[in-house]
Amino acid sequence: MTLPQNITVPNLSGERFRVRYHLTGTEDEARANADHLRNEQTVEFPTNLLPEGDLSERIMGQVEDFAPVADGVFSVTISYAVETAGAELPQLMNVVFSNGSFMSGVRVERLELPDSLLSGFRGPRFGIEGLRERLRVPDRPLLCTPIKPMGLSPERLADMAYRLALGGMDLIKDDHGITNLPFCPFEERVERCAEAVARANRETGFQCLYAANVTAPAHLMLERAIFARHAGAGALLISPAITGFDAARQLADDDRLDLPIVAHPAGSGNFVSGSEARYSLYVYYGQLHRLAGADAVVYMNYGGRFPISEQDCLDAKGGCRDAMGHFKTIFPAPGGGMTLGRIPELREFYGDEVVFVIGGDLHQHSADLTTNVREFLKLME
Amino acid sequence: MTLPQNITVPNLSGERFRVRYHLTGTEDEARANADHLRNEQTVEFPTNLLPEGDLSERIMGQVEDFAPVADGVFSVTISYAVETAGAELPQLMNVVFSNGSFMSGVRVERLELPDSLLSGFRGPRFGIEGLRERLRVPDRPLLCTPIKPMGLSPERLADMAYRLALGGMDLIKDDHGITNLPFCPFEERVERCAEAVARANRETGFQCLYAANVTAPAHLMLERAIFARHAGAGALLISPAITGFDAARQLADDDRLDLPIVAHPAGSGNFVSGSEARYSLYVYYGQLHRLAGADAVVYMNYGGRFPISEQDCLDAKGGCRDAMGHFKTIFPAPGGGMTLGRIPELREFYGDEVVFVIGGDLHQHSADLTTNVREFLKLME
Repeated sequence: MTLPQNITVPNLSGERFRVRYHLTGTEDEARANADHLRNEQTVEFPTNLLPEGDLSERIMGQVEDFAPVADGVFSVTISYAVETAGAELPQLMNVVFSNGSFMSGVRVERLELPDSLLSGFRGPRFGIEGLRERLRVPDRPLLCTPIKPMGLSPERLADMAYRLALGGMDLIKDDHGITNLPFCPFEERVERCAEAVARANRETGFQCLYAANVTAPAHLMLERAIFARHAGAGALLISPAITGFDAARQLADDDRLDLPIVAHPAGSGNFVSGSEARYSLYVYYGQLHRLAGADAVVYMNYGGRFPISEQDCLDAKGGCRDAMGHFKTIFPAPGGGMTLGRIPELREFYGDEVVFVIGGDLHQHSADLTTNVREFLKLME
Repeated sequence: MTLPQNITVPNLSGERFRVRYHLTGTEDEARANADHLRNEQTVEFPTNLLPEGDLSERIMGQVEDFAPVADGVFSVTISYAVETAGAELPQLMNVVFSNGSFMSGVRVERLELPDSLLSGFRGPRFGIEGLRERLRVPDRPLLCTPIKPMGLSPERLADMAYRLALGGMDLIKDDHGITNLPFCPFEERVERCAEAVARANRETGFQCLYAANVTAPAHLMLERAIFARHAGAGALLISPAITGFDAARQLADDDRLDLPIVAHPAGSGNFVSGSEARYSLYVYYGQLHRLAGADAVVYMNYGGRFPISEQDCLDAKGGCRDAMGHFKTIFPAPGGGMTLGRIPELREFYGDEVVFVIGGDLHQHSADLTTNVREFLKLME
């Protein structure tokens, strides 16, 4: 024993947050894994060497609930002292699921975060209501499309943005792979696209927003976002699975920007896709993205070109739109193989508080992009 | 067709980088997935609408090689124009594997990056040789241990660091879950621990390095690293799966810091663990961490408390130590259930260019930490 006995940890409020995990296996395995997990995510220390008192009873996670939910699947709720997460998003993510990601059959299902923890985060700056206000679209589903493909010049992308905005597109975003490329430099593209969308808005009277892709090296992200703001971009696009969630949070929190954040799921299949997926879409696209300040979260829709289930999509929707302390509700933004023909079905499925992300099918429909947007919009009425 | 025909993309050098993927399924499925992948990772556009010329032939990924490697597993090499990745790490990761992470049965096996792409990155500042120089340990395996458990005060952690350094520990790192906590504030801890290790070094004549955990909110990471540098920390600890890889790269590149980077695998099980793992350990802990400037990479060892295979560990070792353009070789740092008894076997397995990360067993061995370190070190001679 290398530690003194009965260590008291100061500054513990007694408040705890809870994480509901699903553990796969026999009941004995699940109980052993729950015990491993509550240690691994906090003290990460041999239990036999851990002093009694605060370290064992308050700092180490505590199993609050254990119940079967399906054959060979157990729902386990572990509580953690709010102080273990500080008010820092990377540390919260660290306590929720860090070394646990190496265990077999563990999935993060839900976060239950008390107000005392949530109050350390601003959350989404705009949310559903704020984004609707900026767009002046009070109630129908929103339409969003990327400008692409990679390889087009800033001039051609701006021309495409103009034609899309003229048709009444709500949100026009850089494709997630179009960042700062030798054949499409960030600054030139953002200036041209923002100008093109502003020109279309003057003609239509609409308030289409152009979301500039600021997924960038860590030391340039804020700089590019500020550039985009000054160039007239109306929103920012970021891929949190690549930049880290806190990079999005930093942009959402910055008063100099004051721009809606659209999150792209590039790379997030590592977390949510497949039978071994380690996060529910509720936590990943809903709760974590709201902590990171996103106002709309793009994810892969069911029935598109990726294997995602209807239940997963309901989960994503719930994570975005269910109550979460003082946080605003945000837009689920399903995409990844959306077609004109599916809009009525999907409107039924999602309701109207949704952003439909339309890519290829908008180009398939006819050679006239502006007309195509109008066709899509008719289905939103 | 909404795009003009035969678009020429300027500024393409003709240089390409290659990614070797493993695709699981029948040959027909694998061929279809390869075709999907080369599109999805670049243009992400319906192939029938893609103009002939540069967009189809140079910007879209090209399948260079397709071969069976096992029953139902195919090795597929796709090449991409180096310009699609710019010289930005987030964008390189984006082209290597973004939406592809949602496809079933796709795993990133190897990156083949030409010098023209690698030259855009500094890579590890110290590497094996540089870290050995700082430690003045020319040839044996290095020993590393975390100070923990979470819940200890800065004073107690500093006392632990002192006793460890006195025994001859090479690298002492904050545990990955010990960041900036109400009961263990970053600044007080780093000052005390750096001082304690310096004091021990004066007594022993060794050059033990203390690695301060700078895994932090995006806007505070650099600030904390600079604080740690001034407080006398000898290295920085960061968890790239949580902060994003480019946050590590930013710290490695900063001349004001000039400190070795130790990477921790918190959260990386999402990428490398399980039968559906989407990255080989070669790419993830080796190639990506070297692009991110890490000098030593902690990962879970085989035979410890997580399900990792010997082959995976050989893979991680190879990714750290194989030639990679102008990049320095770096230390594989296996941990996660290391014991005194296993050191001879693991030394055989890894050779001497390795950091052994010892946690719990160092505390199990006897109540005298300083003696325990000496016992471990004897096995390194």
